[in-house]
Amino acid sequence: MTDFRSDNEAPAAPEIVEALIAANRGAAHAYGADAWSRRLNERFGAVFETDVAVYPVATGTAANVLSIAELTPPHGAVYCHSHAHANVDECGAPEFYTGGAKVIGVAGADGKIDPEGLADLLAATGYHGEHEALPTTLSVTQATEAGTVYTPDELRRLSAVAHAHGMGVHMDGARLANALARLDCRPADATWRAGVDVLSFGATKNGALAAEAVVDFRRDASPTMLRRRMRGGHLWSKMRYLSAQLEAYVADGLWLRLAARANAGAARLAAGLATVPSTTLLHPVEANEVFARLEPAVAAALRARGFEFHDWPGVENAVRFVVPWCVEDAALERFLACIDEAVADA
Amino acid sequence: MTDFRSDNEAPAAPEIVEALIAANRGAAHAYGADAWSRRLNERFGAVFETDVAVYPVATGTAANVLSIAELTPPHGAVYCHSHAHANVDECGAPEFYTGGAKVIGVAGADGKIDPEGLADLLAATGYHGEHEALPTTLSVTQATEAGTVYTPDELRRLSAVAHAHGMGVHMDGARLANALARLDCRPADATWRAGVDVLSFGATKNGALAAEAVVDFRRDASPTMLRRRMRGGHLWSKMRYLSAQLEAYVADGLWLRLAARANAGAARLAAGLATVPSTTLLHPVEANEVFARLEPAVAAALRARGFEFHDWPGVENAVRFVVPWCVEDAALERFLACIDEAVADA
Amino acid sequence: MTDFRSDNEAPAAPEIVEALIAANRGAAHAYGADAWSRRLNERFGAVFETDVAVYPVATGTAANVLSIAELTPPHGAVYCHSHAHANVDECGAPEFYTGGAKVIGVAGADGKIDPEGLADLLAATGYHGEHEALPTTLSVTQATEAGTVYTPDELRRLSAVAHAHGMGVHMDGARLANALARLDCRPADATWRAGVDVLSFGATKNGALAAEAVVDFRRDASPTMLRRRMRGGHLWSKMRYLSAQLEAYVADGLWLRLAARANAGAARLAAGLATVPSTTLLHPVEANEVFARLEPAVAAALRARGFEFHDWPGVENAVRFVVPWCVEDAALERFLACIDEAVADA
Amino acid sequence: MTDFRSDNEAPAAPEIVEALIAANRGAAHAYGADAWSRRLNERFGAVFETDVAVYPVATGTAANVLSIAELTPPHGAVYCHSHAHANVDECGAPEFYTGGAKVIGVAGADGKIDPEGLADLLAATGYHGEHEALPTTLSVTQATEAGTVYTPDELRRLSAVAHAHGMGVHMDGARLANALARLDCRPADATWRAGVDVLSFGATKNGALAAEAVVDFRRDASPTMLRRRMRGGHLWSKMRYLSAQLEAYVADGLWLRLAARANAGAARLAAGLATVPSTTLLHPVEANEVFARLEPAVAAALRARGFEFHDWPGVENAVRFVVPWCVEDAALERFLACIDEAVADA
Repeated sequence: MTDFRSDNEAPAAPEIVEALIAANRGAAHAYGADAWSRRLNERFGAVFETDVAVYPVATGTAANVLSIAELTPPHGAVYCHSHAHANVDECGAPEFYTGGAKVIGVAGADGKIDPEGLADLLAATGYHGEHEALPTTLSVTQATEAGTVYTPDELRRLSAVAHAHGMGVHMDGARLANALARLDCRPADATWRAGVDVLSFGATKNGALAAEAVVDFRRDASPTMLRRRMRGGHLWSKMRYLSAQLEAYVADGLWLRLAARANAGAARLAAGLATVPSTTLLHPVEANEVFARLEPAVAAALRARGFEFHDWPGVENAVRFVVPWCVEDAALERFLACIDEAVADA
Repeated sequence: MTDFRSDNEAPAAPEIVEALIAANRGAAHAYGADAWSRRLNERFGAVFETDVAVYPVATGTAANVLSIAELTPPHGAVYCHSHAHANVDECGAPEFYTGGAKVIGVAGADGKIDPEGLADLLAATGYHGEHEALPTTLSVTQATEAGTVYTPDELRRLSAVAHAHGMGVHMDGARLANALARLDCRPADATWRAGVDVLSFGATKNGALAAEAVVDFRRDASPTMLRRRMRGGHLWSKMRYLSAQLEAYVADGLWLRLAARANAGAARLAAGLATVPSTTLLHPVEANEVFARLEPAVAAALRARGFEFHDWPGVENAVRFVVPWCVEDAALERFLACIDEAVADA
Repeated sequence: MTDFRSDNEAPAAPEIVEALIAANRGAAHAYGADAWSRRLNERFGAVFETDVAVYPVATGTAANVLSIAELTPPHGAVYCHSHAHANVDECGAPEFYTGGAKVIGVAGADGKIDPEGLADLLAATGYHGEHEALPTTLSVTQATEAGTVYTPDELRRLSAVAHAHGMGVHMDGARLANALARLDCRPADATWRAGVDVLSFGATKNGALAAEAVVDFRRDASPTMLRRRMRGGHLWSKMRYLSAQLEAYVADGLWLRLAARANAGAARLAAGLATVPSTTLLHPVEANEVFARLEPAVAAALRARGFEFHDWPGVENAVRFVVPWCVEDAALERFLACIDEAVADA
Repeated sequence: MTDFRSDNEAPAAPEIVEALIAANRGAAHAYGADAWSRRLNERFGAVFETDVAVYPVATGTAANVLSIAELTPPHGAVYCHSHAHANVDECGAPEFYTGGAKVIGVAGADGKIDPEGLADLLAATGYHGEHEALPTTLSVTQATEAGTVYTPDELRRLSAVAHAHGMGVHMDGARLANALARLDCRPADATWRAGVDVLSFGATKNGALAAEAVVDFRRDASPTMLRRRMRGGHLWSKMRYLSAQLEAYVADGLWLRLAARANAGAARLAAGLATVPSTTLLHPVEANEVFARLEPAVAAALRARGFEFHDWPGVENAVRFVVPWCVEDAALERFLACIDEAVADA
């Protein structure tokens, strides 16, 4: 079986497992006072070329909602893409963590929010004073839910619109590494230099066991954020096991190498699918996800040969392939061969 | 000045003020143990021809969010029209009172949710298990925000869709009297017999000073609801002053008479506007609100003659007239005469 | 029957009812844009000799929890007397409105928090960093739940402790008028000059139908507070009916006259009780409440003669008398005569 | 250095690390559909001799507050020991997760709630109806915060009081293994057979990296609980890494062996301290924690010899030793030798 269902189904990378094992020697102070955790601000500061406050947590939802809550008062409104995880896949977690803010889904092609469309939406607010939730937060997903990637310029324009309305900018970077591998730019250029205030930095999908972080570009460790994480139940007593994963993940560019491999696999997979006459790619393939409309017979043939992938709701015959960091060339070769067979059979 | 800005700007009806004064004689038990409050279930039971539990509160938002929270767990989702008060005019109050449920706006012509559209939306849920908020609540507004009125049959079909998904049905009846005056049906037929579980019963806009009620068709007084109201700060110590208003409001059909007068005024006003060549009514006029696209010159002429009304966002040159319960024939005559002049001038 | 059960059972004062009727003439802008509401900041500014922002609401719980939430982040802690309304009589409303802050009851004789005791409690916090809720708010009740009154000096000392810890000071002034009538000091001296930041200003118990206000001594109208009130469902569409009550209440010292009458009644009632050999006053009688340990036979005799009052939990044979603004001399005479009889019978 | 500061500072046990590594081979379904997670109900059912629903999470606070929220509506009240983690160490997390319920600390010797005292407290509730939060939940900590252990009989009596008031019973079992090792009873006897409805099952302090679980004795997997965990951000995408730890933890009695070793160490350490004339043990030593009043000179001497432990707030010269699962005999020998020296020096 070759699993293209989700990068959440992949194992952890050996470098990260080794770091975990190394972190398990002897005692270490609890609740983030250990050596690994105390190095994180510096490590991530080097990655992002600026001072940052890093708050490790175990899940992407935790990173998202702690970040969003930091930017959003209870009477605020969060604008995000209508397909964003925060809008449709977190069971109301942003509403919960903010104390009941509104989450407003914004439509947009290929998973992206359009700066002009956002500006129009925001211009239409404020008519009804305190009766309206206050627009306080823009949340962008990078790479997007459609497997596309915002350019730094697109991000700058979105952030400019948000900041002009006094809003903060959150980036859901569950697949940030895949986006950066695609953009081949400095991490700073696609985050804080493009206007991002608080980042959900993802590692789990790209090789960690469970490790994400809130990266706050705005300030040093905030007592509010520390208590917010504690109240959410997201402060690890043995935090070294989160921090060691994160440290290994960014060391020596591991994260970008893993992501580049996944992206390259997705590109090959997409190129193969593009040879199938009846197949349409639903979105540009810019990261490690491929969305395609696929004849049921082709889908069935692929599955019969051991390839697993999800049907995708909302579009007829749509499927999604996610290529994990650990994809092997042999698997891709087999996939492409199957595609050829399927085309030949049709 | 003649005020067509909002029925919230009208004074209270004399019958209701008199009831308030009458309720002010001597001592009365606090927190709803007074005679007026204790009669309410029976009084409203007679109006609605069934057993009900009535919870008086002072504002329509309070009635809405207590009702919605009663039907919606924190992990639930509330479906309402995208223009519904609960979605856009309550600053996230439903999110707050439910503990962070999702409020999902549903588009629909003339302020109405379409049963088939709702069924399609709901059929598309459930794909992603616990990652999705659970559809638990349908909230319909009667009369709608567009000044239209759901027929009992339309309500039955909406409720059937909701109930088939295990959802509860809330009605925001801030202008229920106007809807009933239009439908000329028994109150039961447009509420619980049409599938409504919990009703926000409005009186403030239609002649009360400040009096609304949650009317729960499902059960006797619920300890949960009582505590919910208390925790919201909506339990009046001197509750007789709310209950006396509500009692007078439904006595001898006062509510329906007041609403019928407002509706009739809106119909005359709309008929007059319809004679202006360049004017378009944006929605059928079925209650006491008239939405129209009006030449700026005509709008200015009306305002110069002392008629007040709101510009309405979202459509160019749109305005809204709301006709209050206390509208006088003379004011309507003057309005129609102005319209004739404006047409003649143009 | 003479009702000493609760000042919440008294009717409204004629001056306030008249103001309500006067406010009912013609149309008025909604949601606080009316003339009465727009005058409130000035009227209360004159009463308190400083700039204030006044937010009318209908209940004391609403005023308390909006005030407390303004001072308390979700990760904060509110210190109040263990018998304070906010701790034991509001069904968790402060926890709800703050988004889950901790409410910490502080013991203290005669309903008062002791400054030294508070300082000790606060000195013991901070040991465990983000694991602890942050002390952010002190809430004092004036007059207290025990019918006693903090002196300005006592308030200053409490506020000094709180401010030294960076905490804000809220006063639950549901019976502020009774306290001021007792202290015979300027309202400013027992509020902001004594360190109070935000005040719940009560009128309902002392002659209004339903009218309270958040009085914010710290600033002009805050967008946060406006939205907080809206989200709570406490923004009245026809706000003039709240504001007119409040305006009449403070006009020409009405509030202090009504409270002085109630206080004087309580003093006479307490003096009478003090003549009963077996009776003990449980607290100094400084406002309009009398707590006493009363032989069951005496209590029964009083009730048989038509006097109503509550048994009080926590102390054997304890009862509470609350004297309302409208107490009549004749009723007090009758009460004292009954006391004499009861003593004679015993 | 020998670390007696906290069992949170200990590394993970080799058996658990090995299980983690073994779980890292190949792909596995996400979000709990993996083989390890799917076996958990059965594995824990065998341990507890009854059907259970197990919900793995990463932190003890998460397990506590998800459990408590499952038992406690927003208008509810949670009774726990005044020193309980849920009351003082979770920064308001229970208030947050319940939507603003009240947490009520109950005093009691040696970290235990007394059944009669609880019954008295509960008997005093209900006087004031909806003004009071409803007692819905009892939360007991096992082993307690004082390092003592409830007997099954004590638990049964507490649960009986709670159940008689319609309340649910939660056990914070962050150190359940230590309690069971002490009691030497079947896990069922100290949990559900003693009336516990929902258990926070701890593994982190006793040898896991980060693994806890809500164990619900009342029912099969609840949609509410699943969504609650999701909304809290506590659903792991790669859940196998939690479940594999938990599986290894209970396999072949590992958890009880590790705990027995820690307990035995604490007993030896306490026995040594008891030989110091000026030293008092503050509580019976029944699990792996030792609280003692220690002369500052003795404490300093121990620290000078490389033993780390916390000063403990609230009692003069109090210190706490926590003995971890990995304590070595040699370290204990050294400790006892130091004690002898300290006594000799004195």
